[in-house]
Amino acid sequence: MENAPASAFIPHERILMGPGPSPVPQRVLRAMAAPTLGHLDPQYLAIMDHTCAMLREVLRTKNALTFPVSGTGMAGMECVAVNLLERGDEAIVCVNGVFGTRMKDVMERCGATVHAVEATWGDVISLEQITAALDAHPRAKLVTIVHAETSTGAHQPLAGFAELVHSRGALLVVDAVTSLGGHELRVDEWGIDAIFSGTQKCLSCPPGLSPVSFGERALAVMDARKTKVQSWYLDVSMLRKYYTGGAGAGGGRVYHHTAPINMTYALHEALTIVLEEGLDARVERHAQMYRRLRAGLEAMGLCYIPKHSLHSLNCISIPAGADDAKVRRRLLEEYGIEIGAGLGPMAGKAWRIGLMGHGSTVRNVDLVLAALKAVLA
Amino acid sequence: MENAPASAFIPHERILMGPGPSPVPQRVLRAMAAPTLGHLDPQYLAIMDHTCAMLREVLRTKNALTFPVSGTGMAGMECVAVNLLERGDEAIVCVNGVFGTRMKDVMERCGATVHAVEATWGDVISLEQITAALDAHPRAKLVTIVHAETSTGAHQPLAGFAELVHSRGALLVVDAVTSLGGHELRVDEWGIDAIFSGTQKCLSCPPGLSPVSFGERALAVMDARKTKVQSWYLDVSMLRKYYTGGAGAGGGRVYHHTAPINMTYALHEALTIVLEEGLDARVERHAQMYRRLRAGLEAMGLCYIPKHSLHSLNCISIPAGADDAKVRRRLLEEYGIEIGAGLGPMAGKAWRIGLMGHGSTVRNVDLVLAALKAVLA
Repeated sequence: MENAPASAFIPHERILMGPGPSPVPQRVLRAMAAPTLGHLDPQYLAIMDHTCAMLREVLRTKNALTFPVSGTGMAGMECVAVNLLERGDEAIVCVNGVFGTRMKDVMERCGATVHAVEATWGDVISLEQITAALDAHPRAKLVTIVHAETSTGAHQPLAGFAELVHSRGALLVVDAVTSLGGHELRVDEWGIDAIFSGTQKCLSCPPGLSPVSFGERALAVMDARKTKVQSWYLDVSMLRKYYTGGAGAGGGRVYHHTAPINMTYALHEALTIVLEEGLDARVERHAQMYRRLRAGLEAMGLCYIPKHSLHSLNCISIPAGADDAKVRRRLLEEYGIEIGAGLGPMAGKAWRIGLMGHGSTVRNVDLVLAALKAVLA
Repeated sequence: MENAPASAFIPHERILMGPGPSPVPQRVLRAMAAPTLGHLDPQYLAIMDHTCAMLREVLRTKNALTFPVSGTGMAGMECVAVNLLERGDEAIVCVNGVFGTRMKDVMERCGATVHAVEATWGDVISLEQITAALDAHPRAKLVTIVHAETSTGAHQPLAGFAELVHSRGALLVVDAVTSLGGHELRVDEWGIDAIFSGTQKCLSCPPGLSPVSFGERALAVMDARKTKVQSWYLDVSMLRKYYTGGAGAGGGRVYHHTAPINMTYALHEALTIVLEEGLDARVERHAQMYRRLRAGLEAMGLCYIPKHSLHSLNCISIPAGADDAKVRRRLLEEYGIEIGAGLGPMAGKAWRIGLMGHGSTVRNVDLVLAALKAVLA
């Protein structure tokens, strides 16, 4: 009978080297399995506050409004969009892969007119392109850019972007889903006004939460809204009363929704591990493992697609004669290794090898190189 | 140093007898801690399909489009609202507590004109009221009603509602957050067109997913939409390609977002436990524990607020002379028992004692009665 009670699910172990989720340390899995608490229990509020404090540290920001949205990375993207935009607003969105494309869609659904700044998939966006877009659309309320394009492996430099965008009175919004915890990322120093990420990439926590952070400029824009945020679930004007309500003396928490309690335990432990390693050391490890993998792949004659590659995600062309699906299936079945397929126009043309967080190790790099060598032979 | 790495979080154990989350069985916590898989891994797709099949069984529905939304209960409410409504639509929403009030807000944020059918908090809505509302607003696209009002403990009878609503060409939408898995609930037999629930109430799974189900009538309404769903994250036209894409022969999954993998493990195990007990036995257990608690509370002179009380949530008046916050704090600190405070107009006037899922036991009933007796003495 299809629906008969099943025994506990014990999956075959995988080595997650795709575009995420990344491998989760046992410490995090164990932390997640602690007994569930109520969302207003003082013990839970303490761990949640501490999680937000650690998020600030990992994001290198002092933004009070820094918290994990109760959904996966795309919920964080939507949270930023619906809170900053109102119907009739204009926005500039950089589109050079799946996630820029999605952001355009998400912001159009907010009733905004979105002006796309495009680059070939795999390329990055230049300051000159942003300048031209701001010249053409002076009413633009914000500029959104993807720091780490998970679909193409492109690593977007952000130097100079905030100064430019702020000089035109707009906000800089950054998608850092695949960079947070693996790449250099300095929210305050770089002048980022709003940012979102995911837990299941370089933080090596299971998917289920999406860290977001809003700076003073973003707060001012939200405070000046004329209309309600179209999403109740993601309305920061209410969420902040829960997430930052306890910060001031006598400030009371206002219940909004039931947060995913055990996911908070997991994120708390994952962030603890990140800070134990140290941000600089962690970024350096990701850089080293990327160089090791890249050297091995190029020695095999495999080519990177993006000019500026991420350290956390390696997007390479499928070599002539190789059967995309068959190679990935053999890696999965014979080695237990998951790598990612190409997305959109790159379907059938690219593989994506993730080296994220707990998964960015010499062991994994050398293993995936050996496995690819065997399977492609 | 505030942000110094902390040792693993081990909370003091609580007996969760508030409005949710409810106590989570060790089996579920253990299942949740299984290694994280990729969201397109065949093993994950199998457990996700099986989870959806079990959800159908627990909801007593054959609806193909039955799946857990990647967020907590309020995300499920919003998912139903944004997919069924377009700007300019009219909706009838029954309001007799916090959750009906919220649904009105959520639906207004969809650009709909919402007509409220109101009852005093603690009371339920009558068929006559719905008839009058449908007479007054013949363009109403749907009628939304809360089966289990978590804020007041009122248990809404649903007999005859679908026939009435369908006879006017509208859809019946039901909030079953606090009834699913604890109260009689028959989606197909009762003619419910769209329903949402949460995992952290009578299913005794941690919060983080929101089961939803849409019937044929609701599908037809969604297929006839003229505009895009305002939420990308909750857009069922895309989500169904992931959740039901594998159902037909040759049907391929289409990646939408990364689902909260480990939460799915937890829900899978929680539903397994529900079906091992059997739905009828589980509903009967909730009824028996409710009667036992009610008899004990009334013997102590405590009074129920709603005329039709839920079995899963007992909303009682705070007796004269008792200090609301102090009593709850003593229960928490001396007994480790969490009960709920009153919400909205019931703040300071009501306590809410949950008997949900794994927490609906003789042991908990007798313990909370003994503890209340001692603390109120």
